[in-house]
Amino acid sequence: MSRIVRLKSVKYATAIMLSLCGVCASAAGSSDVVMAQAKEMRDLALEQNIAYKTVESLTTEIGPRLAGSAQEARARDWAVAYLNSLDLDNVRVEPFELPGWVRGEEYASVTAPFPQPLSITALGGSVATPASGIEKEVVLFENLAALQQAEAGSLKNKIAYVGHAMQRTQDGSSYGYYGKLRRIGASVAAEKGAAGILIRSIGTDSHRMPHTGQMNYAPDVTKIPAAALSNPDADQLERIAERGKTIKVKMVLTPKAIGAVKSGNVIAEIEGSEHPEQVVVIGGHLDSWDLGTGAVDDGAGVAITTAAMELIKASGLKPKRTIRLILWGSEEVGLLGGKAYLQQHQEDLANHVIGTESDFGAGKIWQITSRVNEAAQPYVADIASLVDPLGIAMGAKDVNGGGPDLTPMVQAGFPGFRFVQNGTDYFDLHHTHDDTLDKIDPKDLDQSVAAYVVFAWIAANADVSDWGWEQR
Amino acid sequence: MSRIVRLKSVKYATAIMLSLCGVCASAAGSSDVVMAQAKEMRDLALEQNIAYKTVESLTTEIGPRLAGSAQEARARDWAVAYLNSLDLDNVRVEPFELPGWVRGEEYASVTAPFPQPLSITALGGSVATPASGIEKEVVLFENLAALQQAEAGSLKNKIAYVGHAMQRTQDGSSYGYYGKLRRIGASVAAEKGAAGILIRSIGTDSHRMPHTGQMNYAPDVTKIPAAALSNPDADQLERIAERGKTIKVKMVLTPKAIGAVKSGNVIAEIEGSEHPEQVVVIGGHLDSWDLGTGAVDDGAGVAITTAAMELIKASGLKPKRTIRLILWGSEEVGLLGGKAYLQQHQEDLANHVIGTESDFGAGKIWQITSRVNEAAQPYVADIASLVDPLGIAMGAKDVNGGGPDLTPMVQAGFPGFRFVQNGTDYFDLHHTHDDTLDKIDPKDLDQSVAAYVVFAWIAANADVSDWGWEQR
Repeated sequence: MSRIVRLKSVKYATAIMLSLCGVCASAAGSSDVVMAQAKEMRDLALEQNIAYKTVESLTTEIGPRLAGSAQEARARDWAVAYLNSLDLDNVRVEPFELPGWVRGEEYASVTAPFPQPLSITALGGSVATPASGIEKEVVLFENLAALQQAEAGSLKNKIAYVGHAMQRTQDGSSYGYYGKLRRIGASVAAEKGAAGILIRSIGTDSHRMPHTGQMNYAPDVTKIPAAALSNPDADQLERIAERGKTIKVKMVLTPKAIGAVKSGNVIAEIEGSEHPEQVVVIGGHLDSWDLGTGAVDDGAGVAITTAAMELIKASGLKPKRTIRLILWGSEEVGLLGGKAYLQQHQEDLANHVIGTESDFGAGKIWQITSRVNEAAQPYVADIASLVDPLGIAMGAKDVNGGGPDLTPMVQAGFPGFRFVQNGTDYFDLHHTHDDTLDKIDPKDLDQSVAAYVVFAWIAANADVSDWGWEQR
Repeated sequence: MSRIVRLKSVKYATAIMLSLCGVCASAAGSSDVVMAQAKEMRDLALEQNIAYKTVESLTTEIGPRLAGSAQEARARDWAVAYLNSLDLDNVRVEPFELPGWVRGEEYASVTAPFPQPLSITALGGSVATPASGIEKEVVLFENLAALQQAEAGSLKNKIAYVGHAMQRTQDGSSYGYYGKLRRIGASVAAEKGAAGILIRSIGTDSHRMPHTGQMNYAPDVTKIPAAALSNPDADQLERIAERGKTIKVKMVLTPKAIGAVKSGNVIAEIEGSEHPEQVVVIGGHLDSWDLGTGAVDDGAGVAITTAAMELIKASGLKPKRTIRLILWGSEEVGLLGGKAYLQQHQEDLANHVIGTESDFGAGKIWQITSRVNEAAQPYVADIASLVDPLGIAMGAKDVNGGGPDLTPMVQAGFPGFRFVQNGTDYFDLHHTHDDTLDKIDPKDLDQSVAAYVVFAWIAANADVSDWGWEQR
């Protein structure tokens, strides 16, 4: 036999081995039939553009959807109507209440030494200034640590400004690090006696787009008004400060706390044929900040996971266990949908097999992270092998978390699974006026839909129902 | 002789010819000494970053500089102080008056069928709505031509919306074409009976940044309020319209005409040693729209041409004729600085040899266009040969125009010369809040400074003083 022929046969043998290995992996996890079904639905997802049509509808017909607002309520009506039109099972709203907050007027200007307007937005939950605003000297800090080191009382009758430009990451991991300033900055400044705080936006763009986002007051501090400057405005304030003259800023914020308001999680299912009580969860959050139309955060996630349901439903196939779509309410103001769900489902928590949320924009998925037990690993491997052709790599296998609204469940011991989207540009738009439909590429959404279909179908048909709940 | 040696000698001969041709061109135009001086200043310009420091100072210490405003007056003071600090000659302001206009509140929302806010800005010169706004049905038109074809009276009690998304061009030539809608749209809509007009911004970005810009009312029409929607908002309105339901928009605009206000052109010179009465003009415009800090439009032009003056001054050399820097006032609202200058200089117009204005952003120059007579052509060729290494090509030789503020002079017969910057991205920022310093690359400015130094030095030392004034 010539060397060439032998090499050729080795090549064939390798091909068959790879093919057999695929089957081998399946043997320990999903059946060939389930794998083939998932593959077919995956491929259909890439041809459909369903998700784009859904996010187009949501953002056009509803627009911004602030937690607890009339617009969020309209979004629930929109979702219920749409999910019913897909003939999904058990479409319903699980309501809850929250303390309402609405944005008012918000503007600011440098009044000395170089008078000029500034682009700002109130942080979610901020108290108001007096209607006529406050006009104070500004003290600049490089970052939160520097503010924390300021002497008690040193900011009396002053506005604190804190910089610290957010850096881009592919996986969005820097949000926690830089975002701390937004979450606790006002309380730290108040402890030092400040009359207000301005922060550099937690965002990576260089547009006059201030980034809002939720903040909270520590229980025992004076509540002071808090707003974010756009990055170019923060640059400008820092440049003015380099001139060494006293800076005064006038700031007007008129947000209001409006008492208890209603929100809810919208739920729809494809009922399981063998274990209808056991559920696999996918979803996104229905609320958005009020500045943009919430296309990227999180119309995209709503659309991706709803499209996955639509494709599975259209297949006519029945999963063994129930696939539950949860379109979470009031995520932006403190994961309130997730917290309400945990409370409302205490009695059937153990029936939640695995779940994941799509809430990191409209970019392509590039990685899986998970934390499931030994018994469920073959199914994660099945998912990984099916989404590999989509450009998705298996990442760390010891990562908790399945998306923001599953955090309360994960904290209660729920196993984690996550498709990590490319978020390099996510914080250019996040929580700004600029989060609008034009920023979404329909083909990128299709890739996500394909991945979520695979996840849902494999998990809902797995022979293992305990993927690793941990007692916490 | 071998073929290889012969080819080599041909190559050498070509090289020498090219070198000789360089000298030949100089022989008919600038002297070797002048060419060498221009080259040296050109190379110095590329190492300095002077222009960036200047635009940083102007945009930080003054900020927005609306025509006729206190901030434009502060910009004149800034300019006079800065030009005096450079020890330039005859630093002065040539004042003029204009009818003042100030922006007020501006906001809009769709009130039916899908209530949501819209990002708008008043067009410059627009009248106000009542303080409580107007709320009207919107009729959509694809472009200005479609609006013009609407029947008389058909827009009574309605707001006209006109689309027509601006397309990018390298040379900015599409601005005239698409911009016509902004300039005359309100008058056309008023003729059809409309109560107001909303246009898609004359801009190429996809951010929630509406583009302002001057509009005018035809003499005999009812003045109706006019505003621009950002591109994403225009997309949204068009998507809503596709649903086929009646759209209502509420719009509040409270700009005001405030009577006569002051502006002025700031002038500084390097006096000529042989023909001080003859002038070569460079400059940019000092005013900006009020939304951004006018970094790109036209802090860049001010900085580029001021830096050219600084470099020439620093050389210690004296040009044969005077180099005059004009930092034009109130360009944005109708080339008012240029018009005032023409009136104020009627008696010495013929002493204006040649001139050009930098007013197309902060991008690199890629082309020269001109319209000068036969006698001046060798000097244009000299300039072209010196800026060729900067990546600048000689373009058409029959193009009028030297920049907006020279238009009145050009219309009076002044010969044209222009360095065309790359404006592919210019209309992303133009007349928006987003026109801020962070959008400028200092090295791009240096390239422009190098080109303007060459232009000014060659023109101011040319032996020809008539570059082609035409009687009009």
